[in-house]
Parts: sequence; C-alpha cells; structure tokens
Amino acid sequence: MTFVLYDLAGRDNAVRFSPYCWRTRMALWHKDEAFVSHPVPFHKIGRIDQGQFMRVPVLEHYGVYRDESTDLAHYLEEIAPDKPSLFDGAGGEMLTRFVESFAANVMLGAIAQMIVLDIHDMLDPADQLYFRESREKRFGRTLEAVQAGREERVVSFRASLQPLRYLLKRQAFLGGNKPLYADYILFGMLQWARVCSAFALLEDDDPISDWFERCLDLFDGAARKMPLAR
Amino acid sequence: MTFVLYDLAGRDNAVRFSPYCWRTRMALWHKDEAFVSHPVPFHKIGRIDQGQFMRVPVLEHYGVYRDESTDLAHYLEEIAPDKPSLFDGAGGEMLTRFVESFAANVMLGAIAQMIVLDIHDMLDPADQLYFRESREKRFGRTLEAVQAGREERVVSFRASLQPLRYLLKRQAFLGGNKPLYADYILFGMLQWARVCSAFALLEDDDPISDWFERCLDLFDGAARKMPLAR
Repeated sequence: MTFVLYDLAGRDNAVRFSPYCWRTRMALWHKDEAFVSHPVPFHKIGRIDQGQFMRVPVLEHYGVYRDESTDLAHYLEEIAPDKPSLFDGAGGEMLTRFVESFAANVMLGAIAQMIVLDIHDMLDPADQLYFRESREKRFGRTLEAVQAGREERVVSFRASLQPLRYLLKRQAFLGGNKPLYADYILFGMLQWARVCSAFALLEDDDPISDWFERCLDLFDGAARKMPLAR
Repeated sequence: MTFVLYDLAGRDNAVRFSPYCWRTRMALWHKDEAFVSHPVPFHKIGRIDQGQFMRVPVLEHYGVYRDESTDLAHYLEEIAPDKPSLFDGAGGEMLTRFVESFAANVMLGAIAQMIVLDIHDMLDPADQLYFRESREKRFGRTLEAVQAGREERVVSFRASLQPLRYLLKRQAFLGGNKPLYADYILFGMLQWARVCSAFALLEDDDPISDWFERCLDLFDGAARKMPLAR
C-alpha cells in the first residue's frame, strides 16, 4: 500500500525543505516503500485529514494519518521488519535519541539563525507573513537582523560539529558502513539549509561534507535530484 | 574465571581515577563478572605483562592481556552474551561511537583543563614529574595556568552538555530505563573529575547530576563506595 507523505513545500511546490520531513523521506527510501508526496505550505497544514495536525511530516497509510517524525520512523521499522533496519536493534533506537538531541540542541538553532531570511524568501507568499511574525517573535529581532553576521557565526557552528567530524573521519556513516536513521536526522538538518539557502554551512574539505555527499548519493541520488530553492 | 583489571591509581592506591578505566570497571559490574583490580601508577604501566602496554585499562582473562577500553567492552559483550547487554544490538554498538566522540571532543579537554592541577596533586610522587612535563608540553602552559579561571570556563562547559541534559530530562539513562555502555562512557568522564577534584563541574539541580547520581547508585552503589582523593 502506497504511503502518502505530506511534505512542507516552498513557493515552488517541488521544493521540499523541512528537516523533519527529510528524515521521513529518507526513512521511506531506506525502507524502499512506495510513496507519493503532497506539497503543503505552512498555511495548509491545518487542512490535512480532519485538521488535527500542527506540523508536518504527516504520513497516511491505509487511511490512518500519523505525525511526529520519530514516531513515523518507529512505525516504518515496525511494519517492515524484513526491510533494512533504521535502528539495528533496541540499543540503536535508544542512542538515536542522543543523536536527535545533538541535532535539536547543537544544530537546529544555529542553522536557523543562518538561513531564516533565506527560508522566508523561498516560501509561498501566503506563508511569509506568518513565518516572519512567528520567527521574529521567537528571536526578538527582524529576520534580517537574525541572519546578519552569519559569516562569523558559521565558524563556531563548524567547531560545534566536531563530535560528528571526528567520527566521520573513521567511518562512512553514523551507522558504520551503512546509514541508519541517526544519519538521516543529521542529514535532514544540513539538507534543510542546502535546499533553502546558497550559504555554505560546511567547507568542502570537511569530512562532514564527504558524508553529506554520500547521503545525497543514496537511493540512486534521490535526495540530490530534488530541486533547490534558487 | 576471574578477570584482572589493571587500573590507574593515585598516591593512595585505593583511589582509581582514569575515565577509561572507569568505563571498563562499570562494564565489568554491568556484566556481573568477578574481577580483582591491581592499582597501577603511570610509571608502572610499562611493567604490565611483557611491557607492551602504554595505557590502561588492561584486562587479563585466561592469561591473555588486552587493552583499549572500547575493545574490552566488545570482548565482554562477546564472551557474555547471556548477561545484560552493553549495547543492545549492532545499532547500539555503532551509535555508542558517536557518544564516545562526544566524550572525546566536548568533555575530555574541557574537563582536563579544569582539574589538571588537582590530578597532579593526588598522584604518586614518582608520577608527578612525568605528568607535569607531559601535560605542560601538551597545553603549552604550567598546570597552574591551565587550571586557573575554571570558575568562568565551567559555565560554557555546562552549556556544551545541553544535548545530554535535554535527553536526561526525558529518560533515566542514555539506554532508556536502564544503562548501556554509552552511559558508562560519559559517566567515566565525570567520575574522573569527581574522584580527583573537589571542584563541582555540575550544578546540583542539573538533570545530568541526577543521572550521575543514578549511575553512582548502580550495582549497590559500587562506584559511590570507591574512595575519592581528598
């Protein structure tokens, strides 16, 4: 049964940029599950199913709608245990949470503050006012002021990724010689920036860049084939 | 067959402080393996077995000596698969490496620079000159200068542990409702400081402190019963 992924989209419907939707998209590809995706701008999230969802991704399967990327990963693991695992066991599921916490606490805010104006500029016009108001309230400054100075801040952001860099000098993926869901969590953060913004978060010779390219190459380059907002 | 753990010791032989030895000690307790431990000051590491080891922990089992705490954890997992697992599967083994990289890159250097003089002061006198010379060369300053200002630096150290804190607000251990080897890796870093130094790395109301206390309570409080250098 084909899945339906409700996927955050920009003004160009083909541009999919949510870091959380990217996790679910990579997990669906990892499990080799057929899916169609529906583009959803922010202002239409409330129209999914009966309107009970505040966020995407939402995944519909056999008429049941589910949200929360973490729960979706566990759902995919549960219904397709014969497919390549996203966690490789209970310990993998647990320690994926530490990777998620690293993404949430080291990457999310820092990246947001380097691309927030670029995100605004690629949104559906009907989303832009909501986005500007909600994000300017969150940061207490204009989007322009938040994003300003990113050339300096990116240096400390790169330094903060040292635990990932050190690991990826020694192995191809967080999962070792193959990717796990933990890889997709961190990939999603960087793919969010790559899709929305031309600003380079990483240097080309960074081992993290090499790993990111390997992730883009997975599933016959499926993630690489998705359009960028430019 | 009883294991023999060669364990870094201070001037007081009963004081065991190496963060890596603590990993192995906790892993042996986790596996409920009987072991005796031999105190080893730095200058006697070269006398273990045939003198081929540069570092502790070294673990002897059936006449074979092994080193490297990571390898020892895998050895214990392999020979005692019926005992509680240290990794809970292949994914757990892999993602433990990310936790190890977090310890190596976020915690090790920062903690060392807050306790290095305290470590010096609790060492066997025959170790002190070696320790001072090697660490002053590494840091390019006197031990006194390295440790100075720790009251300011501890603030950013605490902030750097946010990925751990965020997780431990939501669950008891990195392993969920029970500890895994990943817990012992991070525990060992903080236990190193607790044994060597009276300087408080964490605030009492930090969720990380609560988790640390839970680790001290494991195995009938075995880690808590070990003496501190004071």
